[in-house]
Amino acid sequence: MGNCCDRAASFFGPQKNTNVRVGLPAVCFVWQIAMVVLFGVFIRYDEESDTHWVEFRRENNITSDIENDFYFRYPSFQDVHVMIFVGFGFLMTFLKRYSYGGVGFNFLIAAFGLQWALLMQGWFHSLNPETGKITIGVESLINADFCCAGSLIAFGALLGKVSPVQTLVVALFGVTLFAVEEYIILDLLHCRDAGGSMVIHCFGGYYGLAISWVLYRPNLHLSKRFHGAVYHSDLFAMIGTLYLWMYWPSFNSAITDHGDGQHRTAINTYLALASSVLTTVAISSMSKKGGKLDMVHIQNATLAGGVAMGTAAEFMIQPYGALIVGFCVGIISTFGYLFVTPFLEKYLKLQDTCGVHNLHAVPGMLGGFIGAITAAAATEAVYGAEGLRNTFDFEGEFENRTPGTQGGFQAAGTCVSIAFGLVGGVCVGFILRFPIWADPGDDNCFDDEVYWEMLPEFLEIVPPVLEYNNHMIHKHQEISESNFSVDQS
Amino acid sequence: MGNCCDRAASFFGPQKNTNVRVGLPAVCFVWQIAMVVLFGVFIRYDEESDTHWVEFRRENNITSDIENDFYFRYPSFQDVHVMIFVGFGFLMTFLKRYSYGGVGFNFLIAAFGLQWALLMQGWFHSLNPETGKITIGVESLINADFCCAGSLIAFGALLGKVSPVQTLVVALFGVTLFAVEEYIILDLLHCRDAGGSMVIHCFGGYYGLAISWVLYRPNLHLSKRFHGAVYHSDLFAMIGTLYLWMYWPSFNSAITDHGDGQHRTAINTYLALASSVLTTVAISSMSKKGGKLDMVHIQNATLAGGVAMGTAAEFMIQPYGALIVGFCVGIISTFGYLFVTPFLEKYLKLQDTCGVHNLHAVPGMLGGFIGAITAAAATEAVYGAEGLRNTFDFEGEFENRTPGTQGGFQAAGTCVSIAFGLVGGVCVGFILRFPIWADPGDDNCFDDEVYWEMLPEFLEIVPPVLEYNNHMIHKHQEISESNFSVDQS
Amino acid sequence: MGNCCDRAASFFGPQKNTNVRVGLPAVCFVWQIAMVVLFGVFIRYDEESDTHWVEFRRENNITSDIENDFYFRYPSFQDVHVMIFVGFGFLMTFLKRYSYGGVGFNFLIAAFGLQWALLMQGWFHSLNPETGKITIGVESLINADFCCAGSLIAFGALLGKVSPVQTLVVALFGVTLFAVEEYIILDLLHCRDAGGSMVIHCFGGYYGLAISWVLYRPNLHLSKRFHGAVYHSDLFAMIGTLYLWMYWPSFNSAITDHGDGQHRTAINTYLALASSVLTTVAISSMSKKGGKLDMVHIQNATLAGGVAMGTAAEFMIQPYGALIVGFCVGIISTFGYLFVTPFLEKYLKLQDTCGVHNLHAVPGMLGGFIGAITAAAATEAVYGAEGLRNTFDFEGEFENRTPGTQGGFQAAGTCVSIAFGLVGGVCVGFILRFPIWADPGDDNCFDDEVYWEMLPEFLEIVPPVLEYNNHMIHKHQEISESNFSVDQS
Repeated sequence: MGNCCDRAASFFGPQKNTNVRVGLPAVCFVWQIAMVVLFGVFIRYDEESDTHWVEFRRENNITSDIENDFYFRYPSFQDVHVMIFVGFGFLMTFLKRYSYGGVGFNFLIAAFGLQWALLMQGWFHSLNPETGKITIGVESLINADFCCAGSLIAFGALLGKVSPVQTLVVALFGVTLFAVEEYIILDLLHCRDAGGSMVIHCFGGYYGLAISWVLYRPNLHLSKRFHGAVYHSDLFAMIGTLYLWMYWPSFNSAITDHGDGQHRTAINTYLALASSVLTTVAISSMSKKGGKLDMVHIQNATLAGGVAMGTAAEFMIQPYGALIVGFCVGIISTFGYLFVTPFLEKYLKLQDTCGVHNLHAVPGMLGGFIGAITAAAATEAVYGAEGLRNTFDFEGEFENRTPGTQGGFQAAGTCVSIAFGLVGGVCVGFILRFPIWADPGDDNCFDDEVYWEMLPEFLEIVPPVLEYNNHMIHKHQEISESNFSVDQS
Repeated sequence: MGNCCDRAASFFGPQKNTNVRVGLPAVCFVWQIAMVVLFGVFIRYDEESDTHWVEFRRENNITSDIENDFYFRYPSFQDVHVMIFVGFGFLMTFLKRYSYGGVGFNFLIAAFGLQWALLMQGWFHSLNPETGKITIGVESLINADFCCAGSLIAFGALLGKVSPVQTLVVALFGVTLFAVEEYIILDLLHCRDAGGSMVIHCFGGYYGLAISWVLYRPNLHLSKRFHGAVYHSDLFAMIGTLYLWMYWPSFNSAITDHGDGQHRTAINTYLALASSVLTTVAISSMSKKGGKLDMVHIQNATLAGGVAMGTAAEFMIQPYGALIVGFCVGIISTFGYLFVTPFLEKYLKLQDTCGVHNLHAVPGMLGGFIGAITAAAATEAVYGAEGLRNTFDFEGEFENRTPGTQGGFQAAGTCVSIAFGLVGGVCVGFILRFPIWADPGDDNCFDDEVYWEMLPEFLEIVPPVLEYNNHMIHKHQEISESNFSVDQS
Repeated sequence: MGNCCDRAASFFGPQKNTNVRVGLPAVCFVWQIAMVVLFGVFIRYDEESDTHWVEFRRENNITSDIENDFYFRYPSFQDVHVMIFVGFGFLMTFLKRYSYGGVGFNFLIAAFGLQWALLMQGWFHSLNPETGKITIGVESLINADFCCAGSLIAFGALLGKVSPVQTLVVALFGVTLFAVEEYIILDLLHCRDAGGSMVIHCFGGYYGLAISWVLYRPNLHLSKRFHGAVYHSDLFAMIGTLYLWMYWPSFNSAITDHGDGQHRTAINTYLALASSVLTTVAISSMSKKGGKLDMVHIQNATLAGGVAMGTAAEFMIQPYGALIVGFCVGIISTFGYLFVTPFLEKYLKLQDTCGVHNLHAVPGMLGGFIGAITAAAATEAVYGAEGLRNTFDFEGEFENRTPGTQGGFQAAGTCVSIAFGLVGGVCVGFILRFPIWADPGDDNCFDDEVYWEMLPEFLEIVPPVLEYNNHMIHKHQEISESNFSVDQS
């Protein structure tokens, strides 16, 4: 027993340092001070949010304040904002004892990420070479929120297995990689990707999966007791699901063209999402004894329609086209939860807590290709000459690009986002393996007690968990022993 | 005992088939495929969401993209969308063990219903006879959401007593009936009903009540153990209540006239709702020992002001008029929960899980008549000649209609909606009595375990319920025996 | 023991009357009827929500319905509305057994307060001296919501210690005082305070603190068993936090100038809030063993950036300026929760349930002074001549005011709001000490059972609490005895 305990102990709490009392404040302060300095040097208001707007308006013959971009985009911005903080945040509260971490670290990542995103995206897209300044407006805020979404998706794959310091590192590199791949895809390849099937979901999904693959924990079963939902945690997660679902039309349409562009994108996304719900329910019901529905599917796969329409929603895909897209990805995503996630875990050593593979990576990739096909199929007969030019932005150096060529570039863009996600994720994964990040031990994952203050009284009022904890102690002993035998073999 | 057990068994689980593994996927797939085909044949973008908008704009001398209807209605649309999915959905999570079903089936009904609604409403209101196409825009999406609301209200009366397949049947017929009665009321009778007191709430309420009456379960007391709330389920329900309450001004104003129409409707609804809260609290407190408040009243009756202003809110009812309406229906609705629902259950054999009678049917009917009175009382002195014409749409063949006549038609419209609800509901109720729908047994109602996957670990972590379940087994025996004796008498 | 029991009994339930069965309905009815009468006499639609808008539009050469103020402000109004009811409401559900009271009484206060606010603010700001009428539009609704916010903040300090009747009294006087101080600050001193750092947060915070100070309960430790959170109540509170956080840019920008004013305010608030999150996390982590985070800090101090930007957000504080503000107040607010609240309770006899001192009073006061400094530092070089005039409204009798003078008046305004809060709060506190309000006993605070109907079945399904209640009985005895000994000393 002596020996076995020693060896078993190497998997357990005492020697695994999860103290972030120096690291977390240090990172927060250093990064926030850096933000203040960089904002001071680079960031200013754009002409629509500056007090000189009144002069700008007169000079440009703008008849009314209502034509300030604020009124075109602010309602969509707020919807996107809710998706980022409440949508993603509450979707990640589904674990029975990691709800604080789900919603809290999501909050932290996004609050840091959006500042860094304003800088990174500004340098790439709106740095004024004369003044050396980046000017920001409501569209910048939306883009910053989008940029965070990539890192939040990645966090979904890592949920419960990383320390708050690590989540900030994921966000720092995630936002940086995002800005680069977005620049390549949108500016160099001149792709259209308003809702970010490629640049957000596909990139974010593969980025998270690659990190998770590098951080594989062979003994994660030691935390099995916390890996799962309880009745009310699933309901909290449904808040997240529904806000994502309802506001997805705003997500995809937030930065599309004024007028028909935003209008059409919202309609297409609305329809694709509705269609996903029915096929998700159908597959979920088929897969279980008695046709019972699985909350995991309802919480996640119903959203696949929105992800997959991220690129094509602004095109003339037609309402039935949107329904077909939702129909197919609802099925594919649910199958992913049923078969692919367990397969990945077993054979590829890839632990994906929230199943981002099925909700973001694959539907995002499909969305990229659906966009490519829809773009390639565009004709003047359907779009009108002017409409075609506006929709695909065939102007300047891209004036002579044909829809067919555009389709090819869209497909190329999807591949770029996958490559960035995978390669970037592997690199970041190795950085996160340094033993300095205070990540939890294999038996301490999915547990809020590691990083959140919980008073004894707090636990006293929740006897089930308390009892369970007592029960756990015995289980630990069993596990440590059984683990030892596994070790021996 | 032998005989009694046999007889008692006839009320219990084993023989009642609740397997939906074939039925639910089949219905979902067939209906979703039908939607794809019908959308392919019929539905296209309207001129404001089509890429030809740029040409349309030029032809019609529209100076700015901001005049696209999207910017007039999209914020209201999103608020309505939240009401449908989070508002109705979470309001129905109040039952201690049927929260998944409440929010989940609500999601399913609405996602299917809105597709079918786009078709049904399109055929009646916007089918272009030349092209044979229906064109849709943001106003169509709002109307589709409204149309679902009717069926979701009906679902409230049936909550916990029907299978998911039955909920889809309720939605299919509910949307169909809705489109027909709406056509009669709004087009043939030329009523105004922007917020749908008549067409949505009154119809939906009576439709649900009639179905519930036909599906009466004499032995529903066998499920009494699940019929009620727990502390946190009531808080989830408050999320639903508050979102409905806050966004009701958007609900009523979403499709009213641009400009003053939307503006005035929002103000009136806001005031009526505020007034309802105070009278609800007053009556609730008066009704209980010690003046204690009842969560059921707070969750529901506070919303009655919004329902009752659905028709009149766009008229010049004046701010104090709105307060009076809220004042009265708050009282009436709370009295309904206190006295009418128990009365209906006892004497009319009508089981109404959420009390839709008090929140939708009666306030909706009253709202219809309040609208009729307000319309009849309209004068040129108050509205202005032009204002009167715009508000009541006295144009074309209705050019010479007087406010008095309009009032009569409004009242007639209310009666039409009641008739459609009651007759339609009875018919649908009989369809739902076929023994093919896998509905739960009388002792299995209000229980998520029937249609939702719940892992054993899931229950293990919630000892209260587990214990309760053990306790239940004994109770079952008692009930089955006591039931037997009731049966004998 | 006999004597000690008698004395101990004087702190306990039996003799403390918490029956509100007469008082609460009476207050609700009388006040609501008063509202109906006063609205009937005074309140009418303004020209943008009246059916005469079509004529007004023509007369004023307004080209499109989209220039109705409704479209400039309604999305922000709905965001503010959500903050008031869901934001404040759910933020106050954090107590383990006072969640109904938190969200429910918040609902009641706001629903009454907004009606009274429309009248009070109308009398001061928009009473037409010719017609004797107040005309209302969407901006009035926003202002009414703002006005309620002051009383809701005060309620935060009193949470769990007052009866529903008392909350209504707090709202009546709170709204009245608010309207007066707002008139002095905005009209007489001509301060700018769009997001209400001074008029809302600073006033509301000190108003609540002063009331709480007068109502000091020396034996509040008798309710200690209910004073704290449980796992899921903290998650409900996070809903409130996130909605406040996300929509704060709308709160601050809701009534700023059309165009660049709203645009800039939203950007500044967004940035300050993001910055607060990081410093809050840093300080929270530094303060605890192992660097663990405290939910109380995350729920509250993260919002301080929004409070502190309430005045300055519409000025040209620059993006980095906003970050600096958020940086500092995040730290100050978290330190407040760590050190100041316990200090106030121990030495100043001030019990502040939600810590409004740290979230509203101090950041609001700081926000006032930040606004003063930013105003004083304004120059024509940065704002442009026209921009400066528009931003500070240097028109009419204030045409010749300089930014420096404006800064002085801003600072004076902050002092006025503090004075109104403190003096008003002390007066209202003494009114609330009359023994007629049915407030709970010292051993009954923070307990929903006092004012909310809870069925026995309700408790049966939640054994933990039930068990705890049994356990409580013993504790009571201990407490009563220990209390006695304290009393003796």
